[in-house]
Amino acid sequence: MAVKHTKRTEDYSKWYNELVQRADLAEHSDVRGCMVIKPYGFAIWEKMKDVLDEMFKETGHSNAYFPLFIPKSYLSKEASHVEGFAKECAVVTHYRLKNAEDGSGVVVDPTAKLEEELIVRPTSETIIWNSYRNWIQSYRDLPILINQWANVVRWEMRTRLFLRTTEFLWQEGHTAHATATEAREETSQMLNVYAKFAEEYMAMPVVKGRKTESERFAGAEDTLCIESLMQDGKALQAGTSHFLGQNFAKAFDVKFADKEGKLEHVWATSWGVSTRLMGALIMCHSDDEGLVLPPRLAPIQVVAIPIYRSEEEFIAISECFDKLKKEFKDKGISFKYDDDDNRRPGWKFSEYETKGVPVRLAMGPRDLANGKIEVARRDTKEKEILNFEGIVSYVEELLSEMQSGIFNNALDFRNKSIVEVESFDAFKEALKNGGFISAHWDGTSETENKIKELTQATIRCIPLDQKKEKGECVYTGKPSEGRVLFAKAY
Amino acid sequence: MAVKHTKRTEDYSKWYNELVQRADLAEHSDVRGCMVIKPYGFAIWEKMKDVLDEMFKETGHSNAYFPLFIPKSYLSKEASHVEGFAKECAVVTHYRLKNAEDGSGVVVDPTAKLEEELIVRPTSETIIWNSYRNWIQSYRDLPILINQWANVVRWEMRTRLFLRTTEFLWQEGHTAHATATEAREETSQMLNVYAKFAEEYMAMPVVKGRKTESERFAGAEDTLCIESLMQDGKALQAGTSHFLGQNFAKAFDVKFADKEGKLEHVWATSWGVSTRLMGALIMCHSDDEGLVLPPRLAPIQVVAIPIYRSEEEFIAISECFDKLKKEFKDKGISFKYDDDDNRRPGWKFSEYETKGVPVRLAMGPRDLANGKIEVARRDTKEKEILNFEGIVSYVEELLSEMQSGIFNNALDFRNKSIVEVESFDAFKEALKNGGFISAHWDGTSETENKIKELTQATIRCIPLDQKKEKGECVYTGKPSEGRVLFAKAY
Repeated sequence: MAVKHTKRTEDYSKWYNELVQRADLAEHSDVRGCMVIKPYGFAIWEKMKDVLDEMFKETGHSNAYFPLFIPKSYLSKEASHVEGFAKECAVVTHYRLKNAEDGSGVVVDPTAKLEEELIVRPTSETIIWNSYRNWIQSYRDLPILINQWANVVRWEMRTRLFLRTTEFLWQEGHTAHATATEAREETSQMLNVYAKFAEEYMAMPVVKGRKTESERFAGAEDTLCIESLMQDGKALQAGTSHFLGQNFAKAFDVKFADKEGKLEHVWATSWGVSTRLMGALIMCHSDDEGLVLPPRLAPIQVVAIPIYRSEEEFIAISECFDKLKKEFKDKGISFKYDDDDNRRPGWKFSEYETKGVPVRLAMGPRDLANGKIEVARRDTKEKEILNFEGIVSYVEELLSEMQSGIFNNALDFRNKSIVEVESFDAFKEALKNGGFISAHWDGTSETENKIKELTQATIRCIPLDQKKEKGECVYTGKPSEGRVLFAKAY
Repeated sequence: MAVKHTKRTEDYSKWYNELVQRADLAEHSDVRGCMVIKPYGFAIWEKMKDVLDEMFKETGHSNAYFPLFIPKSYLSKEASHVEGFAKECAVVTHYRLKNAEDGSGVVVDPTAKLEEELIVRPTSETIIWNSYRNWIQSYRDLPILINQWANVVRWEMRTRLFLRTTEFLWQEGHTAHATATEAREETSQMLNVYAKFAEEYMAMPVVKGRKTESERFAGAEDTLCIESLMQDGKALQAGTSHFLGQNFAKAFDVKFADKEGKLEHVWATSWGVSTRLMGALIMCHSDDEGLVLPPRLAPIQVVAIPIYRSEEEFIAISECFDKLKKEFKDKGISFKYDDDDNRRPGWKFSEYETKGVPVRLAMGPRDLANGKIEVARRDTKEKEILNFEGIVSYVEELLSEMQSGIFNNALDFRNKSIVEVESFDAFKEALKNGGFISAHWDGTSETENKIKELTQATIRCIPLDQKKEKGECVYTGKPSEGRVLFAKAY
């Protein structure tokens, strides 16, 4: 008997939590706020990682690895950075356990107390800039273009799988430049890399924008971001790229001699995306039946299921699918033939639907006799009976069509969900439906905070490609330089 | 002026430390015992990772990710495991910092004390088996074949770059099986994967063997290992694969229903290699001039250097090398054309020699006029002037010849360094020269410890493919079932 799953319209948040577990992506661990990423979920993350890693390398970056631990005093070196990160970190105070005297297990050995506590990195600017000090003497040592794939820890009180967890996986780029211009160019370049990845691989449309001062990264002079919209009308920040100015170079005393031999502080950027993207991917496309994965990130792109009664039928159908195996491999399409005899076809259909496998092929004895095969696409749930001959090329095109179809769907939805408002009443009314609200704002943190307090909506970003348009702040009526995007957000 | 570097014969350990830094592989961080893996070092590690990851996947394993933190009580659940790991771990006791009242920075917030301390994973058996309990109900859920790439922390008092650091990177496989036989087969299979990787990619010959009881992994019933020999005659354990029996299943209450519905504890294995392999790779092949890398793991396999005076010469030579670029790419050979005008050819020659780039191509105006090119191989330092025509195919073969040449050199050295001894005097005498000492041992930990105490040599392994040969223990004279390999070790 089929288990009843929560639908998106019933309870979006419950639908998401159930789906993450149903599709075997991740689960909560016994360690508060930390998740276990299960093999199927991790396979999707690996695909994301591989694509991003290649994009980073193509833009001249190399990977490296810096320590997990940060001496407590480093955090304090950059004033706004410590404000942002000191409040939510895991602190290592001791380096040894010993047997409890009452034999009840192990206890912390009080004699093994660290002189200075170590923080499990919430982000690595401080430890990295402390290293860069020794790496940089002259302009010849610049730029430094480094990325690191790592786990980070930010103590979170309320956690949700992928979206907000105490430990998460991410990449953090940390670059050092001789000029502010070059560092700003790097900041934009990496924002564009993220946007390209989100749109072309995740099939998720994004708005490129700039954060307001109060939403900036702690220690940044400018934070660029990509913002996406989930199906429930809430926004999700999918990636950020920061221009750090000379803040960290000053905090860690990193100077270089320019061509004239003059000593200058180095200019910095940092940029990152995390396993949060998994949450975005799931919420952007999936439906009540399960995951919908864009083909370019699907660990299994095509699954084939045999339908048979006799051993003879099974052998004949298997022979057909075996032929396809090599053809798919040659085209670089990941193909799985599920010939497990312990499961019925119906169970398998439902399993791969839940897991979002883009294309499902099925073949029964009658198809076999007629040289036919059934092709079902996950996104629209359309099924067709086609000639077996030439099916691989057909599926190849179908996958590419699905990739753009999924993107266009999300784009239509996103575009329909941007509402321009001219009054605060209209603002509040529009907010009921979710989506982005494009409104004038007077540019002050005070107004921004007030609106947040009244409506829970925050300024997601000041879009980069927006036309200049003077107006009046939707809340205060004061002059505004242009519209910004508000939304409730993850 | 050339800096004088320490030679291997002068001080092997100093030579190693200098080389790791000279070749830009890694450096100590300010955090005690933690290293920074620099881009060139990380690029080698990435190549290792990619190859291993593919080998794991080919043998049916998937990647997943488990939490960094382990509740303190988990460690105590498996009795010998806690003995092995409690002594050297980083303990998280608090989850927040706050501003110091005297304005001197941040201090640990005493109100944010964890109820139960968290240990930064020294290895993940406990947290993983705690998850497996919920994943396994019946024989249908088995086997579970999972690997994780992760950072781990073991508090070390004396550290050396790559060889022994407080934080290191590794992979840890954790598998669950229905039968002891299957788990033992997995243990051997993964040992063979490691041996194949070490020999075919790292060009490092290894002895496959079994650890004695006292050298076993804490919690294992059987530990298999690959042991290699460094140029200074010291052994290095390069990888281990453990048969864990039902120890962790019992500690975490993981049972499955077999086909008859009977509940049984699950059988386990775990296996791992770490960034320690980087140390092995360096010490196995490198020479006084710098790194020697086996071509299959070299981030840059071929470097090309132009030698020119005029702009005209530079352009003509660059055109030649540009032609090669595509040809190398098509063959999957990584090629770098170093046309940096700020560095002299001599500086470049020395730089790439230090970094162990296998093949160096150079071309000057005379070569250009004659249709010639200079080819220098890093391992033997031989140089040849060859026809430019057909050079890519020549280099392709050369790389493959170098790969086996480097392996054979190391194999010759290793084979010459295994000495059979029949008396304890001969044992001590042989030990002066380093290498493996093949000797009879009475099978007791007592004798093993006594020999270690007297000579610092430990039993590296009981070789797997050794012929049965009865004899007398080299120390006690008691009966022995076969020879074991002793050595001083890293």
